[in-house]
Formats: sequence, structure tokens, C-alpha cells
Amino acid sequence: MKLRELGEDEVVRRLIRSLPVTRRALVKAGDDCAVVRVSGGVQLLKADCIVEGIHFLADADPKRIGWKALCRAISDIAAMGGKPLDAVVTVALSREIEFSWLNSVYAGMRNAAKRYGVSLVGGDTAQSPGPVFISVALTGIPTDGKYVIRSGGRNLDCLYVTGKLGGSLRGKHLRFHPRLSEAQWLIRKFPISAMMDLSDGLATDLPRMASASKLGFEVDPVKLPRNTECTAEQALRDGEDYELLFAIAPGSAKRLEVAWRKDFPRLALTCVGRLMKGGATSFREKGHDHFRPA
Amino acid sequence: MKLRELGEDEVVRRLIRSLPVTRRALVKAGDDCAVVRVSGGVQLLKADCIVEGIHFLADADPKRIGWKALCRAISDIAAMGGKPLDAVVTVALSREIEFSWLNSVYAGMRNAAKRYGVSLVGGDTAQSPGPVFISVALTGIPTDGKYVIRSGGRNLDCLYVTGKLGGSLRGKHLRFHPRLSEAQWLIRKFPISAMMDLSDGLATDLPRMASASKLGFEVDPVKLPRNTECTAEQALRDGEDYELLFAIAPGSAKRLEVAWRKDFPRLALTCVGRLMKGGATSFREKGHDHFRPA
Repeated sequence: MKLRELGEDEVVRRLIRSLPVTRRALVKAGDDCAVVRVSGGVQLLKADCIVEGIHFLADADPKRIGWKALCRAISDIAAMGGKPLDAVVTVALSREIEFSWLNSVYAGMRNAAKRYGVSLVGGDTAQSPGPVFISVALTGIPTDGKYVIRSGGRNLDCLYVTGKLGGSLRGKHLRFHPRLSEAQWLIRKFPISAMMDLSDGLATDLPRMASASKLGFEVDPVKLPRNTECTAEQALRDGEDYELLFAIAPGSAKRLEVAWRKDFPRLALTCVGRLMKGGATSFREKGHDHFRPA
Repeated sequence: MKLRELGEDEVVRRLIRSLPVTRRALVKAGDDCAVVRVSGGVQLLKADCIVEGIHFLADADPKRIGWKALCRAISDIAAMGGKPLDAVVTVALSREIEFSWLNSVYAGMRNAAKRYGVSLVGGDTAQSPGPVFISVALTGIPTDGKYVIRSGGRNLDCLYVTGKLGGSLRGKHLRFHPRLSEAQWLIRKFPISAMMDLSDGLATDLPRMASASKLGFEVDPVKLPRNTECTAEQALRDGEDYELLFAIAPGSAKRLEVAWRKDFPRLALTCVGRLMKGGATSFREKGHDHFRPA
């Protein structure tokens, strides 16, 4: 069976079920990052790649390509409420490419590294006979000893989304700011029960969180925060938002909203619905209520 | 200027000179692995990738492709004398590929992980519009608190190579065994001053070690250990040997050779020359003495 017939989640589910994993692994493949116990504490570990023609076009600003490559991995560390530490980068590309282009990709990575306190400790190049591939591996540590996984959601938890959704391909996907300080703030101050970053769109990512938490969900489409000129459908399905999706007990919701407005007055925080036993497990593909739970 | 005009070493040298790097970084980009101080000790970190059409052909046994992808990173940890710990993998490929093929790639990685004690804590897939791309990030720790870098070579150190060189493309490049236990044995028992793995061929890698150690070298071509039906030229330049190249003070050489023969009777260990102030810095491209120092 072809990969597209199985779908990404099923492919990953099948691949990871028999991986040799140490008992030191606290969180394995399937979450935003792996979490392993190491001497001295707990480490977060993530590898991610972007591919020309899929995640960026050949004529995109190379600084933005580098920014995106590193920030995607930072966003995954943020999704666990962690602090990023050290990155190693591999770029596979044609030898016919100009050095100045590659140098600009690295300039973009350097900018992101400085901004988010990442140390770029390794860089390597390989040859590609086709598109450019940029892979980034990033380590991190928990914030104040704590991290959040996507499977911790509880029945009736409120679901929140930071920022606005949809339309990322117009440019945000190359310029986004991973919600690092916001995620660390959340994990320090509130009992967040589940969190992830929205990379594939709420319609894909929320069912993943709900399923990992063995729950369904209920989402009010009217409340979806949308970017300018985006339909609710685009907010649900465009993907590459790199915003946070998290769940928190309803008893903490009011206090969270007040504190958030004070500390992040310029970034929207929206309650989009709740996790619910027996709730929806996916979003309908079509129909006038296509973004209601099926 | 195009990348091929600069050459890989110069490209990497230019890219890494302005990377933002923490003081925790003990060894930065340019060695086989990065080495960073983390809470609880020292961590090795490596990312590597293999690309269809460059590092393997589309019709290669997928189990062997997976084996190679992980073992290349293990070989880099071995090159520092380290012990590998946790790996995360990203595979970018067409959605038209059969799941059974990808599953076999993972089976090969699982085999290597089990054999060398690596925990596969994360796996992810991405789409590729072109060749298959497999990136592996691997963490490690020093052996008994020690690790070896490639820049520690001293004047008149003897240069040793494990195994035999050349002809790897006939099959060894997909089946090689990273010299992990050998490297750990070396670092435990002997004062190894510099070490690296031979991935690009002795003619490319030895000048790197010598240059990092601010020395030249002298190599006796007659003593190069060659695989069957390989010329000395092939032993020098084919690459993908994944053997160890290391330097050790001449006073320890005899004791090393005796101990090696006892503990690794089936793996050749060959003194191929020495590091030397004012020695050669590269191998000549052509001529009947082309593998003599230029």
C-alpha cells in the first residue's frame, strides 16, 4: 500500500510501534519532541526537515528559508514548554548552487538562533541531486523541570489557541515566531494538561491531541481566530500556523485569560472549544457545517 | 561562486565561522560530532543525512539503506570514542512510495539500533518531490568521561587505520560496521591524541586531521591496507570506508599493536605513517607517486 493511501498518522503509527526504545525514554515518537532521561536530568530531542518544493519554493528569500528551518524545530521544543539548547544542521543541495545563497540560509538560521537562545554547534553539507533539504536537530530542557505532552488532556478541558489561524502560505510560514516565551510562561504559571504546536492545521492537529488524550472534542467554529481575509475553512486546514494549541481545566480558564491579556496584550488567546468524552474525533470534510465536529 | 568551486571544506569553514555558539560548546562544527557541556556532564551531538542517488541507489535493499543511515551517525560518535544514546529520524519521500519499502528502511535502522545500543526515540516523515532523504540525529556520551577530537595530533604521532580501505561502493558502504567497540577500547586503554572516521577517503580525511592538528603528514603507500582487488589509489580516494583513523605517540605504538592483536584478532590495524611538522598537507592528484605526500 502506498504512503498516501495510509496517511501520515497511520504511517508513523506503524513505523514507531516496534522501535527499540530505552526505559530512559519518557516520551517517544509521536509527540512534538522525544523526552529522555539523561544523567543530570531530562532532555528534549527533535529532528525536523524542510524540503524545497514542499516547505519552501526555490525563489523564496534564503534568509527566510533558514529562519523557517530552525524555527520549526524551536516551535516543537516550545510545544512541550521547553527551552531550546543546541542545534546541528545538515543541508543537502546541488554543488551548482551559489555559496552566497547557502550563506544567506545560514544567516537566517543565525538570526533565529540568536533570537531564541539556540547554540548552533554543528553544521554540515551533503550533495543532493534534486531539491534542497535542510534538516535540523535540536536539543532542549524542560522549563523549571516541567514539560507538557499532547496526551495529558482531560475531559472538559478548555482548548485554547494562540494568535490567528489560516493563510500562512501568504508569507507567515517563512516569518513566524515560535511561541517559545509564551509556552514557557504557560507552563510556569498554569496547570496546562496538554499542548502541541499547530503545524498541520487545527483540523489535523486537534484530532491528534484528542486521540492521544483518549477523548473527543467540541469546537465552536464562530470562535476560531482567523487571519485577515481567511475563511474558517482556511483557518482550520491551511496549516503551518506554528501557534500553540493547549488544554487547561475550566477552573483555571478565567485566571489564565486575565493574566494572558496583561502579559501578552498583543497576542490573541482564544478558547476554541473543549475536549470531551464522546465528542467529535475529526472535522467533516465538506458541508456548510464542515468545521463542526462530525 | 558555486559550491563546487569552493569545495566542501571551504564551504563549511565559511559557514561555521560566525555561528552563534554557547560557551558550553567544547567542540564545535568541524569535528565528527559537536561536544557540549550539559547539566550532568558532556554530550556528543551529531546530525547526518543520506540522499537517494548520492549515498544509495533507488534499487538498493531498503534494510541496508536504513542500516547505513543510522550507522553513519554511529560511526561519527565512535570517531570521538563515545557511546551512542538516542536517535531521532526524519525521512522525506514521495507519497507514492510503498509503505513496505519504508518499513524495511526502518527495519534496517532497528537492526542497527539494537546492535549498537541506540534508542530510536523519534521518527517522522515529510514529503519529498524528488529523491528520498533520510536524516538521523544522534546523541552520545563520552566513554569513561573521555573523548577524542581530530585536532589533538602531535608531531611524530603514529597514524593508524583499522580494517582495509577502498572499494566500498561494491557493497561495504551499505553493510559496514561502525568501529564503536574498537574506538571505546582505544580510548579506555591508550592515550589516543586524535581520531576521526574515514568517510571521504584517507586522501581527504587525513589532510583534515593534520590541518586541524596544525601539522603535516608522511604516509608510506606500501603500507596502506587495501580491500581485495583495490589499487592504492582506490584505497586512498574511494571513501565510505567508515574505518577509524587515529594518532598515537610512537612510544605507545608497540604496546597498542600487541594489545590490539589479542583483543581484535580478526580486524587489521595498520600503521600508515605519521604526523609531522613540515610534512605533506595533501595527496598529489596524479603521477606515479600520486599517493605520496605532495
